[in-house]
Amino acid sequence: MVTPEAHPVLRTAAEAALIAYRDARAGYGRAELAEYVADGADGTPTMRIDVLVESAILAAIEGSAANALSEETGFVDRGSPVTLVMDPLDGSANAAAGVPLTAFAGAIAVDGEFTEGLVVWLDTGRSWWASRGRPTGLRTSGRTALDGAAVSLLRPRFDVPGAAGAWRAVAERAGRVRILSTSCLEAALVADGSTDAFADAASDTHRLVDIAASVVLAEAAGGAVRDVWDRPIVCDTDLTRRWSGIVAASPALADEIAETLRSEAGLPVL
Amino acid sequence: MVTPEAHPVLRTAAEAALIAYRDARAGYGRAELAEYVADGADGTPTMRIDVLVESAILAAIEGSAANALSEETGFVDRGSPVTLVMDPLDGSANAAAGVPLTAFAGAIAVDGEFTEGLVVWLDTGRSWWASRGRPTGLRTSGRTALDGAAVSLLRPRFDVPGAAGAWRAVAERAGRVRILSTSCLEAALVADGSTDAFADAASDTHRLVDIAASVVLAEAAGGAVRDVWDRPIVCDTDLTRRWSGIVAASPALADEIAETLRSEAGLPVL
Repeated sequence: MVTPEAHPVLRTAAEAALIAYRDARAGYGRAELAEYVADGADGTPTMRIDVLVESAILAAIEGSAANALSEETGFVDRGSPVTLVMDPLDGSANAAAGVPLTAFAGAIAVDGEFTEGLVVWLDTGRSWWASRGRPTGLRTSGRTALDGAAVSLLRPRFDVPGAAGAWRAVAERAGRVRILSTSCLEAALVADGSTDAFADAASDTHRLVDIAASVVLAEAAGGAVRDVWDRPIVCDTDLTRRWSGIVAASPALADEIAETLRSEAGLPVL
Repeated sequence: MVTPEAHPVLRTAAEAALIAYRDARAGYGRAELAEYVADGADGTPTMRIDVLVESAILAAIEGSAANALSEETGFVDRGSPVTLVMDPLDGSANAAAGVPLTAFAGAIAVDGEFTEGLVVWLDTGRSWWASRGRPTGLRTSGRTALDGAAVSLLRPRFDVPGAAGAWRAVAERAGRVRILSTSCLEAALVADGSTDAFADAASDTHRLVDIAASVVLAEAAGGAVRDVWDRPIVCDTDLTRRWSGIVAASPALADEIAETLRSEAGLPVL
């Protein structure tokens, strides 16, 4: 269950996501759910299951005063200082196919500063929540070195110059490598200490909605979030902006992963 | 829940695994669970959490007439034609760390022929079961070609000659790549059509206990299991034997993945 302490719009959104995801899986076949039915606000194609979940959330929070920034629809401006930044369905490909690793991820930004982060594992209802300046039960592993670390990665991208070599450089030094195909859930596992880091290996795949919740969760838990190219992760309604996000158990580990990816990404693909 | 149709020793073992896993996670810290406390029957070190789960299962099935072949203990010979071949805790590293992707996997062999397979996702209780010659609700995706397929892989091994190049050859052609770090759960997702294939990319990591249940599940669902080097996957009590297993949605896809891995693994690592 989502904690009652969470901001009402965040809670309402997450609860709508849980129901909409369950209904979508029950009511449609895999091919229907995976069908590209629109182009999202970031210019990439959107699956039917993304539209189903996002529509249900937007309907559920229609009465809220908060603005909303969402993967497919983009920015819904209600003139509020409060904005819900969300990925309605993280792990869309998992969701459509039936791989039970999908998440709702949302962050609250007040006057452009992130104050709360929430990730809900839609397949089980388990959730991770943190609020800036409030105590949290979340605690990263505290690991500071890449050698031997347990690292989750986005899949290697062979079509992005330098990205496959960068992926390999991290994978070769890590003690464990996972690709769960759901950035927000992987970041939540960093925040609770189950893994040491999660990274987009210099492929610039992440949009703000993919990392906003992770910023709050990881930092509250003693971890850190970085971009490979050191771009600040700021609240911006332009969803075409991309990052190569790194969520790590400590600032030192985040820096070492960023450095490793950066130095390899400049070289030709191995 | 495990289906009541399953062989009693398989059901008893799975139910003991569910309880022992929950108790181990609740009763010990991560470092304690991950501590290497013994050497398994295959010669590799064993974590405390593996010992806890396997001991609980062996105690639960002590009254059974069936033989047991298990990861750590090896072969318990009761002179029966029936043998339970099991991995008590697939995804040990996930289990110790708290990544909720762990499984019990068991197969029944009668006179050396596999007749039943069962995988239980220990974090949720969800299970996949099939029995040879009986109808099953499991159905693979039916996919026949590697290009664009959703493929799960063991992590790339940079220390095994040829293995990293083989890994890359498959990853580069696949449409999706995942590393969930739990072979049996990944194979179950092939059997139910959520992913198209799972493979050990020529690293010879798989032992019989890692693939026995998958053979029954995948074949009952219309899929196929192969070894990269075409070694037959036979019931053998020698757990030092290794395979590079491939579980695929169709015989054609299994063959294509085997061929791709084989031809790359012979070349120097890229």
